[in-house]
Amino acid sequence: MNRKLAAEFIGTFWLVFCGCGSGILTAAFPQVGIGLAGVSLAAGIALMAMIYTIGGISGGHMNPAVSVGLAVAGRFPAGHILPYMVAQVAGATAAGAVLYLIASGKAGFRPGGFAANGYGDLSPGGYSLTAGLVSEVVLMALFLFIILGSTHRRAPVDVAPVVIGLSLTAINLVSIPVTNTSLNPARSTGVAFFAETAALSQLWLFWLAPMLGAVVGAAAWRLVGESGAAQADPTLALKANLRA
Amino acid sequence: MNRKLAAEFIGTFWLVFCGCGSGILTAAFPQVGIGLAGVSLAAGIALMAMIYTIGGISGGHMNPAVSVGLAVAGRFPAGHILPYMVAQVAGATAAGAVLYLIASGKAGFRPGGFAANGYGDLSPGGYSLTAGLVSEVVLMALFLFIILGSTHRRAPVDVAPVVIGLSLTAINLVSIPVTNTSLNPARSTGVAFFAETAALSQLWLFWLAPMLGAVVGAAAWRLVGESGAAQADPTLALKANLRA
Amino acid sequence: MNRKLAAEFIGTFWLVFCGCGSGILTAAFPQVGIGLAGVSLAAGIALMAMIYTIGGISGGHMNPAVSVGLAVAGRFPAGHILPYMVAQVAGATAAGAVLYLIASGKAGFRPGGFAANGYGDLSPGGYSLTAGLVSEVVLMALFLFIILGSTHRRAPVDVAPVVIGLSLTAINLVSIPVTNTSLNPARSTGVAFFAETAALSQLWLFWLAPMLGAVVGAAAWRLVGESGAAQADPTLALKANLRA
Amino acid sequence: MNRKLAAEFIGTFWLVFCGCGSGILTAAFPQVGIGLAGVSLAAGIALMAMIYTIGGISGGHMNPAVSVGLAVAGRFPAGHILPYMVAQVAGATAAGAVLYLIASGKAGFRPGGFAANGYGDLSPGGYSLTAGLVSEVVLMALFLFIILGSTHRRAPVDVAPVVIGLSLTAINLVSIPVTNTSLNPARSTGVAFFAETAALSQLWLFWLAPMLGAVVGAAAWRLVGESGAAQADPTLALKANLRA
Repeated sequence: MNRKLAAEFIGTFWLVFCGCGSGILTAAFPQVGIGLAGVSLAAGIALMAMIYTIGGISGGHMNPAVSVGLAVAGRFPAGHILPYMVAQVAGATAAGAVLYLIASGKAGFRPGGFAANGYGDLSPGGYSLTAGLVSEVVLMALFLFIILGSTHRRAPVDVAPVVIGLSLTAINLVSIPVTNTSLNPARSTGVAFFAETAALSQLWLFWLAPMLGAVVGAAAWRLVGESGAAQADPTLALKANLRA
Repeated sequence: MNRKLAAEFIGTFWLVFCGCGSGILTAAFPQVGIGLAGVSLAAGIALMAMIYTIGGISGGHMNPAVSVGLAVAGRFPAGHILPYMVAQVAGATAAGAVLYLIASGKAGFRPGGFAANGYGDLSPGGYSLTAGLVSEVVLMALFLFIILGSTHRRAPVDVAPVVIGLSLTAINLVSIPVTNTSLNPARSTGVAFFAETAALSQLWLFWLAPMLGAVVGAAAWRLVGESGAAQADPTLALKANLRA
Repeated sequence: MNRKLAAEFIGTFWLVFCGCGSGILTAAFPQVGIGLAGVSLAAGIALMAMIYTIGGISGGHMNPAVSVGLAVAGRFPAGHILPYMVAQVAGATAAGAVLYLIASGKAGFRPGGFAANGYGDLSPGGYSLTAGLVSEVVLMALFLFIILGSTHRRAPVDVAPVVIGLSLTAINLVSIPVTNTSLNPARSTGVAFFAETAALSQLWLFWLAPMLGAVVGAAAWRLVGESGAAQADPTLALKANLRA
Repeated sequence: MNRKLAAEFIGTFWLVFCGCGSGILTAAFPQVGIGLAGVSLAAGIALMAMIYTIGGISGGHMNPAVSVGLAVAGRFPAGHILPYMVAQVAGATAAGAVLYLIASGKAGFRPGGFAANGYGDLSPGGYSLTAGLVSEVVLMALFLFIILGSTHRRAPVDVAPVVIGLSLTAINLVSIPVTNTSLNPARSTGVAFFAETAALSQLWLFWLAPMLGAVVGAAAWRLVGESGAAQADPTLALKANLRA
């Protein structure tokens, strides 16, 4: 279990370091900045790479909402959710701290929103709470649906991390303007501590909405994706399918 | 059959949500917008991910012209085309509605073209009806040719969804200026309802041209890609090749 | 043989349509243009997708310099080079013609360079003949080295089209400013007919340099990549390795 | 051994030619430049492609810090480090020279930083030595962790070069503003010779930090990724797993 939690800590550190770091350091670099497309790519590639790296150890969740969704779908033991969450939030927060250290190495640095998530005044494009809620719930439901489907025995699971990672890229390409894209309570929490804005006061939405979406996605997959008979082997699909 | 139709509904919802949503919400975001390259990536990634997810259930068409083309090629039962179409258009329209809800969460929102397809005055770059017709027919023929070839038993079919999805990216990179890139009557229909423009009056082209192109592509593959002997197993290639 | 030539015709059509079309129609689209990065992606994705599609039929060359290089490396019968070349140039020219038809559907269209290759005054960034020659020879040598290595029995050949296609993307990302990136005499010829510039007068370089580079690349692979013993099965690696 | 060193020479040449060449020639091209996102893609794709190409020959390191890290992890003979390093630095320097030749084919060319790495005044975004050190150490540790995990027997190793290459893309997307992204002493050295700036005087950091990071990454993987029992086959994972 310790190895699993260490893997989730390191994995979530990497995910937040790349996903949020690219937003903080490089997105708006003068003239040659990577923009929101570059940030979306960094987040998706980081997720893909780390699922391949630690998928065989911890399953490669790096996201409390994914852990919950997999538990609802019967693919992850519910008793492991809490320790996973702690490791994920700790990894994300450590990444936020190291990013802060690096970013403050530039004269005149101000953290600003620090890649935190938000709605209303704190939405990158000024979108309302309702828009943010709908966006996070709908996209998280689809994301979990894709995670469950692409790791199902029916699919070529060796490619699943590519599917899951790049889906996060597509999701970012749509929803960064709305909420700065969370779908991951650990990611939201890890950088909110360092924002100058009131990001912490909006954090509840980015725990609530992804969790809700994950439950919806798991239910949708149960209806659509599972055949009549119960799945024979309800263990961790990713881990099981990666070569042991 | 209900599970297949539900899968097509969800799949087309996701495809339109990402492909059109990225255009509506993020393409022209000030300074860090993703541009047409980001939209092209979102559309292609979304298609790839969902074919992996539901390919083993419904085949993962998410596009009436693909269903028709596969039927012409003898890989899909003609009797299933109509129910598939209904599910696809319904999913696309639901995505258009949710996108409208999110987009209207920003003060001063106006739908404008709402990522609808068009020619002449409604072409993003002001291209004529002829240019739009040629672009959609030629690219759809090539797209179906690639779908048939990459899912053929001769090819490594586990990679086919990557091939098909990223081909849609390449197609968007070429033809967004001409018609905003359809190749998919469901996608065109789902957002046209919400446009302020006369997009509905031009919808006929985006049903006609992709269908025509799909037939041409299926014929081209029959001439070039099939060996002399009839194909032994003319069932759904994708489904058959994914692990059952 | 007719099916092989038809496949090469269609494949080269698609490659030029996407690679050059994205440059002509979308690269400099106002505000949301895809730039040279989008063009590079379109070219690389198009190549990847078509190798998967027709690799099992014709080998998926779509490039006279690749056909020559594979022949030098002993993986393609020298007697097939000429008919392949004719099919490739014909496909590229047909793509140029259809692109011209579409592009002229916009009021005030002027072909300009029409994505042709060039040096000196016709180099996108104003690079000299020497710079263009060095760039095309060096990159083509490396490209053929990668083609031979990634399709060698020692490598996981199902991934080779991804390697080859995305390498073309990387090559474009470096060398579009120098020559507009050829490495492919068919691609250079197919659009040069439609340029307003003197592109045809510079076409010799884009036949000479890629051919020279391909020979260098084949020689480098022979020295570095082959083991002491002769290769047992010197047939088309791609075709042989794709499931027959 | 000569074939291995020739492969490392060619591989590192290609990596620097694409990664640094895209920065020098194309990043800031007027209006349609590829920006830092395009440079990040070129570097990552180049690495991926060459690991597939020469992975079965030399392991495909192309980076002294990777060679050291793999040796620390027990996957590479320590006695091979020095000759590998020489080949890698020679290849990188040759790439720098050819890039200089091409770049100087444009009237008025000035080398400027020539894609060299730097901190303080020579950091692209003006980041301090501390920020640069932390960025290079942390990212290299994570990079080696990913290399070791994705090539481990537990993972689908045929995909490992994609994981490793695109991870380099994500790393560039985060850290180009800080140090211009090294993580590779050969890459740093190869272009520093040609810079007009004092890049050579800062080169020590880009040998020290990646080496330090590689050791940290190898240690982290030993703790997290290895099971209790010693690994049965501590040879080159990549080479062993690629089809011999």
